[in-house]
Order: sequence, then structure tokens, then C-alpha cells
Amino acid sequence: MNRFARYLPILEWGRSYDRLTLSSDMLAAVIVTIMLIPQSLAYAMLAGLPPVVGLYASILPLIAYALFGTSRTLAVGPVAVVSLMTASAAGAVAAQGTPEYLEAAITLAVLSGVMLAVMGILRLGFLANLLSHPVISGFITASGILIATSQLRHILGISGGGDTWPAMLGSLARNIGETNFWTLAIGASATLFLFWVRRGLKPVLVRIGLKPRAAEMTAKAGPVLAVIVTIIAVVSLGLAAKGVSIVGAIPQGLPPFAVPSFDLGLWGQLFVPALLISIIGFVESVSVAQTLAAKRRQRIAPNQELVGLGASNIAAAFSGGYPVTGGFARSVVNFDAGAQTPAAGAYTAVGIALASLFLTPLLFNLPVATLAATIIVAVLSLVDLKTPIKLWRYSKADFTAHAATILVTLLAGVESGVIAGVAAGLLLYLWSASRPHAAVVGRVPETEHFRNVERHDVITIPHVLSIRIDEGLTYLNARWLEEYVLERVAEGPLVKHVILMCSAVNSIDASALESLEAINHRLADGGIALHLSEVKGPVMDRLERSHFLDELSGEVFLSQARAFAKLSQDNGQPTEPTDHWHARGLI
Amino acid sequence: MNRFARYLPILEWGRSYDRLTLSSDMLAAVIVTIMLIPQSLAYAMLAGLPPVVGLYASILPLIAYALFGTSRTLAVGPVAVVSLMTASAAGAVAAQGTPEYLEAAITLAVLSGVMLAVMGILRLGFLANLLSHPVISGFITASGILIATSQLRHILGISGGGDTWPAMLGSLARNIGETNFWTLAIGASATLFLFWVRRGLKPVLVRIGLKPRAAEMTAKAGPVLAVIVTIIAVVSLGLAAKGVSIVGAIPQGLPPFAVPSFDLGLWGQLFVPALLISIIGFVESVSVAQTLAAKRRQRIAPNQELVGLGASNIAAAFSGGYPVTGGFARSVVNFDAGAQTPAAGAYTAVGIALASLFLTPLLFNLPVATLAATIIVAVLSLVDLKTPIKLWRYSKADFTAHAATILVTLLAGVESGVIAGVAAGLLLYLWSASRPHAAVVGRVPETEHFRNVERHDVITIPHVLSIRIDEGLTYLNARWLEEYVLERVAEGPLVKHVILMCSAVNSIDASALESLEAINHRLADGGIALHLSEVKGPVMDRLERSHFLDELSGEVFLSQARAFAKLSQDNGQPTEPTDHWHARGLI
Repeated sequence: MNRFARYLPILEWGRSYDRLTLSSDMLAAVIVTIMLIPQSLAYAMLAGLPPVVGLYASILPLIAYALFGTSRTLAVGPVAVVSLMTASAAGAVAAQGTPEYLEAAITLAVLSGVMLAVMGILRLGFLANLLSHPVISGFITASGILIATSQLRHILGISGGGDTWPAMLGSLARNIGETNFWTLAIGASATLFLFWVRRGLKPVLVRIGLKPRAAEMTAKAGPVLAVIVTIIAVVSLGLAAKGVSIVGAIPQGLPPFAVPSFDLGLWGQLFVPALLISIIGFVESVSVAQTLAAKRRQRIAPNQELVGLGASNIAAAFSGGYPVTGGFARSVVNFDAGAQTPAAGAYTAVGIALASLFLTPLLFNLPVATLAATIIVAVLSLVDLKTPIKLWRYSKADFTAHAATILVTLLAGVESGVIAGVAAGLLLYLWSASRPHAAVVGRVPETEHFRNVERHDVITIPHVLSIRIDEGLTYLNARWLEEYVLERVAEGPLVKHVILMCSAVNSIDASALESLEAINHRLADGGIALHLSEVKGPVMDRLERSHFLDELSGEVFLSQARAFAKLSQDNGQPTEPTDHWHARGLI
Repeated sequence: MNRFARYLPILEWGRSYDRLTLSSDMLAAVIVTIMLIPQSLAYAMLAGLPPVVGLYASILPLIAYALFGTSRTLAVGPVAVVSLMTASAAGAVAAQGTPEYLEAAITLAVLSGVMLAVMGILRLGFLANLLSHPVISGFITASGILIATSQLRHILGISGGGDTWPAMLGSLARNIGETNFWTLAIGASATLFLFWVRRGLKPVLVRIGLKPRAAEMTAKAGPVLAVIVTIIAVVSLGLAAKGVSIVGAIPQGLPPFAVPSFDLGLWGQLFVPALLISIIGFVESVSVAQTLAAKRRQRIAPNQELVGLGASNIAAAFSGGYPVTGGFARSVVNFDAGAQTPAAGAYTAVGIALASLFLTPLLFNLPVATLAATIIVAVLSLVDLKTPIKLWRYSKADFTAHAATILVTLLAGVESGVIAGVAAGLLLYLWSASRPHAAVVGRVPETEHFRNVERHDVITIPHVLSIRIDEGLTYLNARWLEEYVLERVAEGPLVKHVILMCSAVNSIDASALESLEAINHRLADGGIALHLSEVKGPVMDRLERSHFLDELSGEVFLSQARAFAKLSQDNGQPTEPTDHWHARGLI
């Protein structure tokens, strides 16, 4: 693949584009468009933005991703978690409904787009690894709970707000008296209907004669049915006059050309939220893309994905949208509907553009409660109560990171939640990386194998101490290494030779090298020789570039068996302690 | 050791205290006291504080450490690097010479003390591992350069300032015209004399008949000689009237009882600097203490050291001092002078207390230039120009962290330098941890050993792919693992069995487990079975607590040889791809 095609994947798949691919892509685009219209309006509302912004964010970003993205089937656009994060970040700098709030959302999109693109160009995709699976799943579960709770007020027709779970619950409790009967009737029945659609509609469709695949696709149109029926209900029963909130006038037309703010103060305020949105969006998107690509034995390039998502978000910002990413549900629908290339995304963009040109007047009487029901049903599937149980059984450290992420997200909001999750994961990792695995080993009788003395009946000799190190030596465990070796030596008063068996040591960084030097000198001060055995080739090459081997009081043996055999023979007088202290000029 | 003695080590060594120990400790205390008097005054000046504060910081903190510390020979008090960090932190909130500046220094001591003690009680000493050797040595080198540069103005007798190297050099260049001849004469000759004392005095003393050890100790009094001679010069030549800055009146008496500020705003401003001072101080102190303890085959307890240093800093705060830690030079002198127990530190405290009661009037005419010379000579030994060369040859990653720390410290100040060093080290570590070592392996002919196919002539079979993983699987490399395995499979179109050889895998965290599950499902989708071999006992125990083994499409083999032998036989039809996608309920 040439360099140019790497940055513009369309050059590769575009070459073999034919009529068959076109018709597959078109069919997928129609199905995804129908699914996306209510979803885009709903997620924009969740982000605290006018519904039309959701449509705007589903047009140009899809075209940008089609040009730069590497997944054949990923569908980008507004998604629930990123919408919630946008509401939280924009809400911190302006009030919902003000032009400043919209400006903040657009600025988040451009910042996030630039960050993603820069990370892609610098090939920093590995930073997404900082989010472990338990942290991501904790964050998604907590976000699902927060989002569902935030929409309850629309189902009840009451006012309210709050960024954290206690604040939301408190506001619901205070205002529950305002509940509007008609809103609740619409909201509750739409919610129940949509829950039923998820599980119950497909079997019914199959029973009336549709093929399973067709039934599956048709069931995706359930939200559209809910939209149509509730609009008819509002119009025919005159519910708007009875206090049911409706979407109202949606501007008709294509997205405007918007220029994001270049106010550095605003950039400073939105920098951290934009970074978190970028990383969460990237992780969500790349997981979906990888899962789908593997299904068809295709590959995606994570660093180029960053560029693709970056381009999408920049496109969102310049067309009045807000942060977008690859969505799980819509990508799966796109895939199953038979999308073959990113062109399907571009056709979907055309579909949404047509909708925003011609359909918006029909949505005037759409009840807000219907959109809230769409969101609630979508996000409750994100809440995963099995994972904490599995994690508790599998690993207490992972459970801790998961639980901390859920708690902090619910109690202190989405941004604190992500940061707490990363910090908890990193601390637990560093803690375990600072205490690696090692064992005192002895020779298994009649063999040349060496095993842990605590688990096996092995041969040891009082004046030879063999320690097997089971991990690469880095600055995180260098200090531990010194303590571990010197403590084992302190336990064996007869020890004259220490052998470090390095069969599992893949690397020794400069800090660990200094610790080895310190161990060597301290042991030499006590008349004990330090030896190495089974050092790997690349590690040995590197050691030869330092002075360590010259200073080493003992030898480097090719095999542990040879080291043990030779040093076991040495029963002579203890060697004279050298005064390395003065030799090193420390005084 | 009982629980109580662990937190109060004096209970242990106090029991066996006898007359011989007393006389050793007393002798050491006298020598250290003589060395500490000029040093304490000088470091307080470096911290931008009145010289007497240096004496205060050398009394109660020593007694607190004697009670709580675990090193027998560590000497705590003001040190150069921490003094520089204090000047930088206090200078950010108040102007030198104001009561607010002194209050900030005292508040830094109490904050740092509380942080150290809390970290000790929570056993968080491992956090100091975040500072790698290359980062520490880069920080110390850069601090040495900064400190020496900051003192040049006192040698020249000019005004100036600045927190960063360019600012200091600029201010020196602007004011060089103000140079005072007499100050320069004193400063330059004191500097040259002290440099000569370091190298040249001991041989002279030996030649006139002193024993080498006594000569070494006597040479430590060199700075005292410079102090006496320059005071005499000032008095006899009337230099104070000729523009030579002198120390002036030093309050006579014991340290006052001071109450640190409890202004939460100030605490907030000083929180990060105090944390950095704590960590740098702890790392410096614990390295010295470990080196000395190992010399006498004693042990120190790093977490209890945190408690000891915490107590010292709290004591410093309540007696009008500023942040202290274990110093390298003084601890080595204390050790070599024969100190046996922490009581030597307490006797030193008494010596300094006597000095602050009776000696301070004698120091009225001490030239500031002499103190500056003391500092310059002390810190230039911190500047280490060999380390960057060694690091460049040994490891480019470590060199990068080292160079970044030096540059940021010089150009942006000490706090940014420490933070940049930790961040650079962590990023480089995470980058390499996210791309661990693994290899496709084959069987060495006529053996049961398996080796890297790229380095050895080994037997492989097209439908069996064996991958040896050389590191523990964690969330940092989980995504890499998926990519690596799927790419190797994509390269071998005939592959029907993948064996992951786990002989070097010490742990599999929850994220890596999910990646293994994903690999298993994706391979199964393509009709390829996943097998494991040589899984370690503890890892297997944990896997058995998950559902992974139930879902695994292949088997777990005790040995790689057995796995390879059995799967090599299987030349039958490809197994039917299972549609795990639908089975997992993802749609």
C-alpha cells in the first residue's frame, strides 16, 4: 500500500467499486437512514442541543469518515455517551439554550477533531490502552444509568436537571408533583412499545412470513413507528394544548457553514473535556470497527482511524454539529444490512440531508417524551450488571477499578469518572508492576531443570542462591529487585554466590541496570559474588554496551545448570570483601 | 518485631544502647555539627530564607527522625535541591524577605510532612518508583546547574534573580557591571579554596602525619576554615563598608514555637509543590539510607522512612524551619565518623542548638559570598555529565527521559522538570508495555524445545501456528495481543490451529481475558481453533474462575510439545465456522 493510500483509504477501495457493491451500499444506507433520523434528534436533545443539530452531525461527518476512515462498515454520528459528555462539558461554560452553549458544543467538536487527527498523525493510538476494559465498561454502565435518569423528566413531563446521579434524583423527587398525565401516557407507552420491539417484534414478523433477516431489519424501524404514532396522537387529541412538550419548529434545510470559536479562553476551559471525549469516542469506535472487521477478515488501522474520526469531528464543527464517533448499534445495522464500503456512509449522509430538507416540518408535533423513550431504551442495554460479578470473581484489582469508575461517574460526573478510572487502573498496575514475580529456585533431581523451592522438592546448596526473575526489569521494579535480592541473601548467612536466572527477562532499562550494579557492589562488599545465567541475546547485547559486565564480581553463564554445577564445587574460603565504596569515589 | 516497635524503631535500638555506642555517636555528632553550621546557613540562603532558619531546620527535625526513622546513620536537615524547590514554590506565592514568604516555607514543611507520613501509613512508598534513575539524575544535574548559577550573583556582589536558567543568565548579564571587586575577591578565593579542600587537603594532612581517616574528617572542616578566614578579612579590612554583603545580625536563641498557616487557599497553592518536594526528598533520602544500611548489612524500611521524614518535616514546621530530608554528604560523614545509632542525630541537634545559642553573634561579619562559594562547590559535584553519555549508549528511551528532564528543569523550573520527567518516563514505559515481546515459534528438530522461527532452524507446520508470549497480559497490551495474533493468522491462510504458548505469562488481567475471548471468537468465526499451552498454575487457577475455558474452541495443553504433536496430526476438513456473533446476542 503506498503512503498516499494509507492516509486516504478511499483510493484503495474506490478502485474496485462496482454496481453490485453500489446496490449493497445503497440498501444499507436506506435502512441506517431510517434508524438514524429519530436517534439523531434524540441524542441532540440529550446533549442539550436543538434536535436539528443531531441531523447536522449526521451528514458531513459521515462523508469525512468515508474519505479517511479504514473501517468498511463503521457508521459515525452522534452517540449516547459522547452526547452526555458534551452536555456536561458545554453545561459547565454556558446555560442550555443559549448561543454560547451551542458554540461550546461546536468548539468541543473542533478541538476533539484536531486532537484525534494529531494523535493519529503522531501514531499515539496506544494511549487509548490506558482505558482498561473494566474502566470502559464501568464508565458505560454508569453513563447508561445517568442518561436514563436524565430522560425520566421528559417521560414525566416535569422540569429538572443535574450533572450527577444524586442531583438528578433530587430534582426528580422535588418536581414529581408537576407530572403531566398525557406526557406520562405517551412516554410510558412509547417506552414499553420500544422495549417490546427489541425482543418481541422480530418473532411476530417472522410468523407473518418475513425472512429472519428481513424481520430483523424491519424491527429496527420500530422507533420510526413510535414517532409516527405519537405524532398522530398529539395532533388528533390536541395534546400540545394539554401540556405535552413537542419538538416544535425545526429549521428546514442543509447544515449551515459554521465557524467554531477561536477564543483561547474557551479552548482552555474545554481542553480536558475535549480530550476525554476524544479518547472515549475513539475507544468506543475502534472496538466496534475491530469487531466488525474481524467478522469479514478485514483489518482496520487504529492510527488511521484516529485521523478518520478527527476529520469527522472537524467536519461536524464546520457544519454546525457536535462531537461524533462510530456508534455500536448503527454500525451493526449497517454491517448486517450488507454495507460493503464506506460509501454506504456517504449515501446515508445523503439520506439524512434529504430528511433535513423535506421531513422536518412533519416532526413539528413529535412529543419530546417519544425521543426520551428512544434514548432510555437504547441506553439501558448499555447497563451491564454481569460484569461487576465476573470481575469480582476473576480479579479484585480489576473489580476495584470498575467499581471506582462507576461510583465516581455517578457521584461526580462523567469527566471525573473517566479520570478516576484511568488513575485507578494505572495505580493498581504500577503497584503490581513494582512487585514482579520472582522465586528462589533449586535443581530438580536428575534433571537440568530448576524450579521454585517453595513448590517443588529440589536440590539447593547453602552457599549458592539461585533466583529466577520472571519479568522484564524496569524502573518500576528496580528498587524492588534490590530489596528482594538483598533480603534473600540476608536470610542465607552462608551464601557466597548469587545467580540471577534471567530466562524470562526481556529487557533491562537504565534504572534496573543501576540497581544491578548496586546489588553487585553491595554483595561484593559482603564478599558475595553475583552471577547471571540464561541472559537473552538482545539483553546481553545491551549489557555489553555498559560497564556492568566489567564490574560484575561473578560470571555470566549460558545455562543455569552449568552455573549451578560449577559454583556448587566452590567450597573454598570466602573471597576478600572489596571496598567498592571508596573505589567508586563516593566519599 | 512487634507492631509498636515497627512504628517507633527507637524501642529496638535503644534497648542495647551502651557506653561504647554513646562515645561513637558523640564523636560523629561533633564532626557533623561542625560541617552542618555553614551548610545550614548557606542552604537557608539558597531557599531565600534568613540564615537562622537553616539552623532551626537542623535541630528538632533531627530529633524527630531519631525517634521514627529506620536508618541508623541518615543525617537529615536542609539539602540543596529541596532548598531550591522551596525557593521556587514560596517565590510563587510571596516575595523573598516578606513574612508571607517565610510562612509559605513553613507551610510547605508541614504539608510535606503530613503527605510523607500519610504515604508511609498507607504504605505508598512504591509511588517513588515513578521517578526512574535517569529522571532523578537529570533532575539533580539540572538543579545543580540552576543552583550554582543562582549563587554567581553573590560571588560577583550584584543583584539578580530568576527561576529558570535563561532568566538567571539574563539577569547576570544585565547586572554584571555592578560587580564589586572585594566581594569577587572573597567569593572567588573562597570557591577556589573549597575546590582545593575537596581534593588537595587530605593528601597534605596525611603528609603532615594525620592518619588517612582523621585527615578525611579534618578536611570536612574546610568550609569552617573559609568562614573564619573570610570573617577575619571582612573585619580587618573593613570590607562591609566597601560594599561586601554580610550575613548581619542572626537572632540568638533556640528555635521559636511556630504555628504553620492553616489558610486553605495557601494549602491549595502549595499542594503540588509540597508533593513534589516530598517525593524528591524521599527518593534522595531513601537512596542514601539504603546505600549506607547495605554497607553494614542493616535494613531500612522504606514505608517507615516516609513516617520518619514526615515527622521531621512536621517538626521543622513547628519550630520555624523549612522542608528537610536526608542529605547525602552529611550522612556519609556521619557514617564514616562512626555513628552507630540515630542518637548521633539527636546529639548533632544539641550541637546545632548550642551554636544557635552562642555562635550566631560571631557570624555577623560572615560574607554572603563565602556561603555562596560553599553552595557552588557542594552542588557542582551533583552535575553529572557522564550519565547522559552512558544512557545514550545504553538506551535511547532512557536518554530521552533524562534529556527531557534536564531541559524542562533548566528552561521551565524545578516543578515542571519533575513533572515532565515522570510523564516522559511513564509515556515511554507505557509505549513499550503496549508492545510486548512475542514470537512465532517452531520445534527444534529432535528435541521438545520451541524457538523463534526468525532466529532458529525449526520445524513448523502450515496448519498449526504456535505463538510464544513473553510477558504478562495486561490491559496495556491486550489490544496489541488481538492485533498480533490476528495478523499472524492473516499471514498464514492454511492455519487451522493457533497455540498460545504461555510459559512466560505470569498474569492475565480482566482486559486481557476479554481480548483472549475476542480472539477465540474471531478465530472460531473463521473456523480456526485456539489452544493454550504451558499455562502457569496461578494463571490457570484464575482462568478456571472465568467462562473462558468453557468457551475456548480448542484445548489447554500441559506442554507445547504435546500440543504441537497432537495438532500436527489433525489434517482433516476445516471445522465449520460457528456464528458466535449471533450466539453472543450482539444483535
